[in-house]
Amino acid sequence: MSDRPARTEEEVLDAIERRRRRPVRKLMDERITLSHGAGGKASHTLVEALFLPELRNPLLESLDDSAVFSVTENGRGPRLAFSTDSYVVHPLFFPGGDIGELAVNGTVNDLAMSGARPLHLSAGFIIEEGFEIPELQRIVASMGAAAREAGVTVVTGDTKVVERGKADGLYINTAGIGVMERDLDLSAAGVQAGDRVIVSGTIGDHGTAVMIARGDLALEVDLESDTAPLGGLTATLLDATDGVRCLRDPTRGGVATVLAELALSSELAIAIDEAALPIVPAVHGASEILGLDPLYVANEGKLLAIVAPEAADDAVAALRSHPLGADAAVIAEMQSYPPGLVILETAFGGSRVVDMLAGDPLPRIC
Amino acid sequence: MSDRPARTEEEVLDAIERRRRRPVRKLMDERITLSHGAGGKASHTLVEALFLPELRNPLLESLDDSAVFSVTENGRGPRLAFSTDSYVVHPLFFPGGDIGELAVNGTVNDLAMSGARPLHLSAGFIIEEGFEIPELQRIVASMGAAAREAGVTVVTGDTKVVERGKADGLYINTAGIGVMERDLDLSAAGVQAGDRVIVSGTIGDHGTAVMIARGDLALEVDLESDTAPLGGLTATLLDATDGVRCLRDPTRGGVATVLAELALSSELAIAIDEAALPIVPAVHGASEILGLDPLYVANEGKLLAIVAPEAADDAVAALRSHPLGADAAVIAEMQSYPPGLVILETAFGGSRVVDMLAGDPLPRIC
Repeated sequence: MSDRPARTEEEVLDAIERRRRRPVRKLMDERITLSHGAGGKASHTLVEALFLPELRNPLLESLDDSAVFSVTENGRGPRLAFSTDSYVVHPLFFPGGDIGELAVNGTVNDLAMSGARPLHLSAGFIIEEGFEIPELQRIVASMGAAAREAGVTVVTGDTKVVERGKADGLYINTAGIGVMERDLDLSAAGVQAGDRVIVSGTIGDHGTAVMIARGDLALEVDLESDTAPLGGLTATLLDATDGVRCLRDPTRGGVATVLAELALSSELAIAIDEAALPIVPAVHGASEILGLDPLYVANEGKLLAIVAPEAADDAVAALRSHPLGADAAVIAEMQSYPPGLVILETAFGGSRVVDMLAGDPLPRIC
Repeated sequence: MSDRPARTEEEVLDAIERRRRRPVRKLMDERITLSHGAGGKASHTLVEALFLPELRNPLLESLDDSAVFSVTENGRGPRLAFSTDSYVVHPLFFPGGDIGELAVNGTVNDLAMSGARPLHLSAGFIIEEGFEIPELQRIVASMGAAAREAGVTVVTGDTKVVERGKADGLYINTAGIGVMERDLDLSAAGVQAGDRVIVSGTIGDHGTAVMIARGDLALEVDLESDTAPLGGLTATLLDATDGVRCLRDPTRGGVATVLAELALSSELAIAIDEAALPIVPAVHGASEILGLDPLYVANEGKLLAIVAPEAADDAVAALRSHPLGADAAVIAEMQSYPPGLVILETAFGGSRVVDMLAGDPLPRIC
C-alpha cells in the first residue's frame, strides 16, 4: 500500500470528470486475456460491452450476484434468487478446501448476498481425460459435505469429458436457486451517504492461501482458505437489524473491486479506513513478498454489509455473535462526495483513490 | 446396423437374468476416459457409483433431465424445473448452429421434457486465453437470438479465463429454471406396457453434422444440426392430449441409449420398429462411411414421447402440426416382456438387443 499524499481537490474533481465522461466502455482488445476473467476492470468491460448488449434484459442488467424474480405471471408467489459461477481454481486442493467445497460455497454465497435462503444447486463437471477417479471421488465427497453444511442439495447435474490437454484436470460449474423469505430488496441502489461498510472478518485469506499452495514461491506460511457458506451468517445479520441496505461477497477482485463497483453504481464515495481492515499477519507478510494488496485478493467466506449508520453497532454485534463473523469490523463509510470514487485513508494519514482490479496478478484463484 | 438373427428365448432370458443380478455398478476404471462423458453406459456407471452416493437426495436420484420441486415449505405454490448442461462441442461453429445456440436450446429442452415452460437461464463461460473476441461476440449473439426464439432470458452469468492450453477455445455451461404450469408428472415411472414411443422427427442429424464439420473425413454432405428449442412443440403436444406419460430428448447416446435407460427404469421391454425410424439419406450415407449407427447419434431438436396407445394418433398429429415435428412417427412399443430390454425389430425381419452406448465413438458433439 502506498502512503503517497492525499490528492488535491482539483485532482479529485478531475478524476470524477474523467470517470463521468467515460462512455459505455468499449472492448479494445482483440483477444481474451486472463484479465477478462479476473473480476476487475477488464471483466466489467467485457460484460458491459459484449454480454449485456447481446443478452439484454432487466434482470441481467442489475448485475447483482443473483437475479431475483417471481415465477408467477402476477408477480405473487415466492420470489427466487438464481446465480451461477464456474470454478477453475488451481490447484484443485489447497489448504482449507478444494474445488468441490468452493463450488458449493461460492454459489451458496452469491444467493445469500441477495438475502435468499439457498435451496438447491446444479453441478456441471468438465473433466479432462485421464483424471484420476479417486481424486474426483474426494472432490465430489467434499461437495456433498459442503452442501450438507450449507443446507442445500445438489439436485441436477451433468458430466462432460474433454480430451487430454483440453482442460486442466477439472472445472466445475454450479448454479443455485434460493427463495426470498424476507421482504427485502438488497441492492446498491438503496445505499445512502452516511451508511457504514462492515466486513465480516479478515480479508485476503483465500487468494493468498491458493497462491501459496501453488508452491512456486516456496513460502511456508500457516494460512488456510476462508471458504465457508454464508447463509447462516447472513440470516443472523438480517434477523438482528433491518438496517442492512446491501450485501456483497468480495471474491475475485477483492474488497477493493467490490467497493469500486458499489461507488460507481450508487454514485457515492466510499472512504475506507485502512487501519480498520482486519488482515491476519500471514496475509500481510505473504502479500509483501508476493507484491499483492490484500484489498484486491479474493475472499470466499466473507461478506461486506452496507448498513444504515444507526444500525452499524447492532450489525457488527450480530456478525460477531456468529463463528464466521468473529472479526467483523466497520471499515468504511459511504459519503456523498466525491461521487463514484473509493478513497483509502491510509494508516499514515494520507489518502489514495482505490480503483477496480486492473490486470490479473492472481489467475485462477477460484 | 446388423441383421443378425433374433436371439433365442433362452438367450434373452439369460440376458435378463444377468441384468437383474447386476448389483449397483462399480467403477472399475482408475481414470476418467472419454466414455465417461459420452452419455452411455460409462456415464451411467459414473453417476450411479460416484455422484449419487456422495450427493444423495431424492430429487437427484430421479435422474430425470430436470429436477422438479416446489420452493415453498408447504409444497403449495408453483412447481419449478431446474436443469443444467455444459457444452464442449468441437468445432464451436458447425452447419446449422454453434455452441451458443446449442447451450441455450439444450437446457431449454431439458426443461421442456419435464413439461415445464422454460423461463430463465444462467450462463457460465470458461474461455481459453487468446480466444478471439469477435468469435465470442458471434457466439453470445447467437445465444441471445436463441434465447429470444425460445422465449427465455439469460438472467445471470459468470466468466472465467484459463491459460492457453487449459481449454479448447470456449466451454459454456447453462442452467435453466422453468415453471410447471400443468398438473403433470411426466416420468419413466408412469410408462405402461402397450404405450407407443413417438419420435418427433429424423434422428442422428446433429451428431453427424458435427462429425462432418470436423473435416477429418473430407465428406461433403449437405446436412445441418437439428438444434432447436422444443418448448413450443412440447406445449403443442401436451395441449392436444393428456395421454403423454414421459418425454425425453435423445441427445448424447442417441435414441438407443435413452430407450435402454427407459426400459431399465420402467422395467418394461421396448420393441423398436427399425423400418419406422425417420432417417435422412445424408445421415444414412454418412453413418455407413463413419461406421456409426444413427440410433446412437445425438439429436438436439428432437423429442421422444411415450404416450398411451389410444393417444398415439392424436399425439403424432399434434407433433406433425408443428414445424419442428413434421416427420413425427411411432417408432416403438412398450411391452411387458422381456423386462428391461430394448429389442430392435430389423427391416429384414430379424431382431437384436439394443444396449446403451458403450465407448465413445463421437466425442464432444455437444
